[in-house]
Amino acid sequence: MGRWEPNARGRLEQAAMELYAERGLDQTTVAEIAARAGLTERTFFRHYADKREVLFGGSEALSERLVASVAGAPDSARPLDAVAAALEEVGALIEESRGRDFARARRSIIAANAELQERELIKLASWAATLAGSLRDRGVDERTATLAAETGIAVFHVAFDRWVSDGVERGLAALIRESLGELKALTAGERRPTTASAHTFRP
Amino acid sequence: MGRWEPNARGRLEQAAMELYAERGLDQTTVAEIAARAGLTERTFFRHYADKREVLFGGSEALSERLVASVAGAPDSARPLDAVAAALEEVGALIEESRGRDFARARRSIIAANAELQERELIKLASWAATLAGSLRDRGVDERTATLAAETGIAVFHVAFDRWVSDGVERGLAALIRESLGELKALTAGERRPTTASAHTFRP
Repeated sequence: MGRWEPNARGRLEQAAMELYAERGLDQTTVAEIAARAGLTERTFFRHYADKREVLFGGSEALSERLVASVAGAPDSARPLDAVAAALEEVGALIEESRGRDFARARRSIIAANAELQERELIKLASWAATLAGSLRDRGVDERTATLAAETGIAVFHVAFDRWVSDGVERGLAALIRESLGELKALTAGERRPTTASAHTFRP
Repeated sequence: MGRWEPNARGRLEQAAMELYAERGLDQTTVAEIAARAGLTERTFFRHYADKREVLFGGSEALSERLVASVAGAPDSARPLDAVAAALEEVGALIEESRGRDFARARRSIIAANAELQERELIKLASWAATLAGSLRDRGVDERTATLAAETGIAVFHVAFDRWVSDGVERGLAALIRESLGELKALTAGERRPTTASAHTFRP
């Protein structure tokens, strides 16, 4: 079919994103997406399992990339650096594939729909679990693996939000690197005994 | 009514938790919870808005506590330490109120239900947003506020998981402190240029 439907996937994606932005995902049907793209519903379902997959498609492939990247990190890589490098690699892929304009449009659509926000949180939580598992496979103990993975995802989340903010021109991979540097600065510096700061706020 | 229904809330909670553990939340009705507690449905709804609130009730009050704690932190407190102290305070409250046995039972119930897992993620995400807002109110810039809040929630999440793990006896507040210390160790140490580690993994 491909030769009679040039760039069907891209046309469907564009039509879907326009309709989601105009009227929300819930108020858009697959028939309408296909019609706007000048294609059939059957073609839509050849490319996407459902309406949401236009927004979340590719997440599984990115997750596999995280696994491969952590597995391929040098033996000397420290857990958080291995995680950050994997997330930078995925960040670079996101930039190169659908890019920032898509990510910005996508973010507006997700911000308008509680169910999509939940799905986005679930995606990030599953990436954290994936990263922790990959670190454990490298022999990192479970506690450190979980902490490094959850922290890495927090850094990614912050960097991604910056990337899609208006006026930001830096690339996603660069912003991940920058956010990790900021985290290191936040946690470094004079180390007061942590118990002291805790007690300060207790009645 | 209270004098004829001693500890109604506690009895309803215990009945609900037993039933959720036995057959899952979806397969449990409010009528069954009330019957097992020897109370009426009407009494249930005087204490809980719905079945889920037995598991998530109190989250709003804890969120308010986070705000108050960050607002009351000394001017000299660094953002991540203010966040950690607020989370330790909430951790101590969780320990003192429903305690670890409840938290362990709750975790098993949530682990068996995708919708509850989502709600738990949403709760943590909303706490992160709350903490970031509280830091901004103290004059912390938005980027630092978001990063400190998201990182603090990652630390809390890890500490909470440890707290409810079998065989762990340490308190939740202590585990939050310990996890923050581990994060500081993870991010400290010799700082190789982060770009180098990123490029190592790129083709």
